[in-house]
Amino acid sequence: MPGGLLTDLYELNMAVSYLRRGMTEPATFSLYVRDLPRARGFLVAAGLEACLDFLEGFGFDEDELAYLASIGFEERDLAELRALRFDGEVWAVPEGTVVYAAEPILEVTAPIAVAQLVETSLLNRVTLHTTLATKAARYVLAAQGRDLVDFSFRRTHGTQAAMAVARASAIVGFVATSNVEAARRYGLVATGTMAHSFVEAFPSEEHAFRAFAEDHPDRTTFLVDTYDTLNGVRTAIAVARELGLEERLGVRLDSGDLDHLARETRRLLDAAGLERARIFASGGLDEHEVAELVRAQAPVDAFGIGTQLGVSADAPYVDTVYKLVEYAGRPVMKLSAAKTTAPGRKQVWRRPVGEHADVLGLRDEDGPAGWTPLLEPAMAHGRRTRPDPDIPAIRERFRADLERVPAKARRLQHAERVTVERSAALRDLTAEAREDALDRAGIGGPRASD
Amino acid sequence: MPGGLLTDLYELNMAVSYLRRGMTEPATFSLYVRDLPRARGFLVAAGLEACLDFLEGFGFDEDELAYLASIGFEERDLAELRALRFDGEVWAVPEGTVVYAAEPILEVTAPIAVAQLVETSLLNRVTLHTTLATKAARYVLAAQGRDLVDFSFRRTHGTQAAMAVARASAIVGFVATSNVEAARRYGLVATGTMAHSFVEAFPSEEHAFRAFAEDHPDRTTFLVDTYDTLNGVRTAIAVARELGLEERLGVRLDSGDLDHLARETRRLLDAAGLERARIFASGGLDEHEVAELVRAQAPVDAFGIGTQLGVSADAPYVDTVYKLVEYAGRPVMKLSAAKTTAPGRKQVWRRPVGEHADVLGLRDEDGPAGWTPLLEPAMAHGRRTRPDPDIPAIRERFRADLERVPAKARRLQHAERVTVERSAALRDLTAEAREDALDRAGIGGPRASD
Repeated sequence: MPGGLLTDLYELNMAVSYLRRGMTEPATFSLYVRDLPRARGFLVAAGLEACLDFLEGFGFDEDELAYLASIGFEERDLAELRALRFDGEVWAVPEGTVVYAAEPILEVTAPIAVAQLVETSLLNRVTLHTTLATKAARYVLAAQGRDLVDFSFRRTHGTQAAMAVARASAIVGFVATSNVEAARRYGLVATGTMAHSFVEAFPSEEHAFRAFAEDHPDRTTFLVDTYDTLNGVRTAIAVARELGLEERLGVRLDSGDLDHLARETRRLLDAAGLERARIFASGGLDEHEVAELVRAQAPVDAFGIGTQLGVSADAPYVDTVYKLVEYAGRPVMKLSAAKTTAPGRKQVWRRPVGEHADVLGLRDEDGPAGWTPLLEPAMAHGRRTRPDPDIPAIRERFRADLERVPAKARRLQHAERVTVERSAALRDLTAEAREDALDRAGIGGPRASD
Repeated sequence: MPGGLLTDLYELNMAVSYLRRGMTEPATFSLYVRDLPRARGFLVAAGLEACLDFLEGFGFDEDELAYLASIGFEERDLAELRALRFDGEVWAVPEGTVVYAAEPILEVTAPIAVAQLVETSLLNRVTLHTTLATKAARYVLAAQGRDLVDFSFRRTHGTQAAMAVARASAIVGFVATSNVEAARRYGLVATGTMAHSFVEAFPSEEHAFRAFAEDHPDRTTFLVDTYDTLNGVRTAIAVARELGLEERLGVRLDSGDLDHLARETRRLLDAAGLERARIFASGGLDEHEVAELVRAQAPVDAFGIGTQLGVSADAPYVDTVYKLVEYAGRPVMKLSAAKTTAPGRKQVWRRPVGEHADVLGLRDEDGPAGWTPLLEPAMAHGRRTRPDPDIPAIRERFRADLERVPAKARRLQHAERVTVERSAALRDLTAEAREDALDRAGIGGPRASD
């Protein structure tokens, strides 16, 4: 299914008007985050690959057109929609790039009808992936190099979101996911142990551990808190010794005072000569709890991160918009209270070394000498201009960029905004476009019809 | 694709152990919300239909099995997985039913391997739909009968979540959605007007309104805040008069002080003799803002609700769990700190009249005489036992149930918990199962192997 109905009805209303009126001039829409959530000092751009997939497949099939006919669209409009493909261009910042408020994540240029029709799905995809990659990055900051694993599938907003979390967390450095389909799709490491129900299904915890170790000798991490955590650790040690699995033993703590239990667990393991056994902690952890455990030097080797990551619980969306900035060569802007937009096709230049300092300007400017332009061509004539980078490449980009996020914006709490400077050319164009918009608004009463 | 990989790896690890060991006795898992989010006094159960769809299609295709082989599953295990279908039974509360913490939303009984494998996807679906239906219900409480429309597609966590929001909001009483595909799929009313970009693409606001009205004479709601809201209202009035569309005029306010602007807009419309023109408000509204506008008697006829609904921003998940409560005829429970479970197959009885008073008990009990059991058979032998109710039927059930939510739990702020009483039989079984669990835990040190 091409998916042309994956849109808001108003996009179709507008597209039909444009098509009827022969308004086929190119429009440029800029997709960016207006303001950062209070709890965020930076964003990790993500979702581009999903957007390009959508654009390459965009169109209407006959069932979709028949539905539109049933709700009042006319045959002459359906004929136009039937022929529509996305044949425009996309400029975008590569996935894994750190961006700040007002910096375009992508810009679309295409005949206005089709550029408008894809708005809803592009916003949806960028919002989802950017929200999740940004949240996952906070865990990476908190974990200070300890392993992180995505455990969020069961509480994400649907299966598609679960796939997005697995990918978004991988691009910022998570080492594995519990989500088997995501591991297959994205080439990630799938990981997992057992649930409490497994322990309960056997006559005793010891029976359960022994059965699991026999069946999965390469995955002998035992969940030890079904009944009593430290007693569970002792059972795990006994079973590991009995089966000669000392070198592969891991234990997972999923409830209680994790700091205390991790220290006691480490003590029991070390006393048994199992210094290499790993301790895995999970149980609804947010990034602040991870940071606190790390700061306290709790002996946790890896964290399983679920719901708080999976829905980005403290900031479940970012304030993305998709704004018309140029139509038929004319820069445009809106003046709505507290929601004004800046006109023109954009570029962002980033200082090449040291903490991030960015300039938001126009695409055709030169920009500060030696600074790096963040937006690159991603699609031309409706086709990708380059292969998608793989996840390790995106992760490398992110790692390098994260190091340069200003310290005040990296903080997990009380992060401060990074101010993005506007270029002189953008400021001038904004002033001009504002005059033009005021004129078009006909402030002072409706103008006579032309 | 059957979708057997839409699960966490640990489910597969456990299933393989069960299958190898011939552990095919029936297990019952109970899916419920452990604790309500702080900002919620009640939940609206939803997601059952999506769960039944998943269960009816459950299985592994050859590509999925090949992937499992590639990550270490053995041929003997794949042969077992290849043959697996969901052939168990489901009891569930009908969608649209109000439920409280600890009350099962559904219970699955099936051979333990398959009942375990479906955990992740069932939790994912119930969590998504219940979270969203519950949030949408709060807008219904806030709007006091004014129309509500779902505008959230662009910021939901993916397309699948967008479909879920459209459906979840419809079952609690929203009158329409902007989401065209959701309208098609669920038989909803699709609605939409125009974006700011449409106004900007024309030489003036007046040109834009006139074009839109000419092209869509049945959908003449004008977005009036692109440049200056009240000036936009005057332009809308002029164009409606010019084209003879006075009877169909609507205006949408999307920014600024909505209370003030709605009153001024109403005044302008009424002064022009357009008493029947409707005022539509949107712009990131949460349920408290809707309630405040309604309380202040702002003349808003309909609200367009987007992101705050679409991600359930103040409570983006509910604390769902899927717990083994019986295996091979034996009631089971876990003892983990602060996460104990109650054993046995459950039923919830609800007082037939007045404010909700519920008793949580065992399925085989009689329950209080004349009280209504909430859980009903939904699937037997892997097949639905009845056709899915349609959305109007679910909406009726919800409306009737909402009226009986205790006042303290209906409040949008500072809602209080509804305490669900445990039956004597459940309390007795819990005490017995706790003894059994302590015994199985081998508290006091690992037991000798048997």
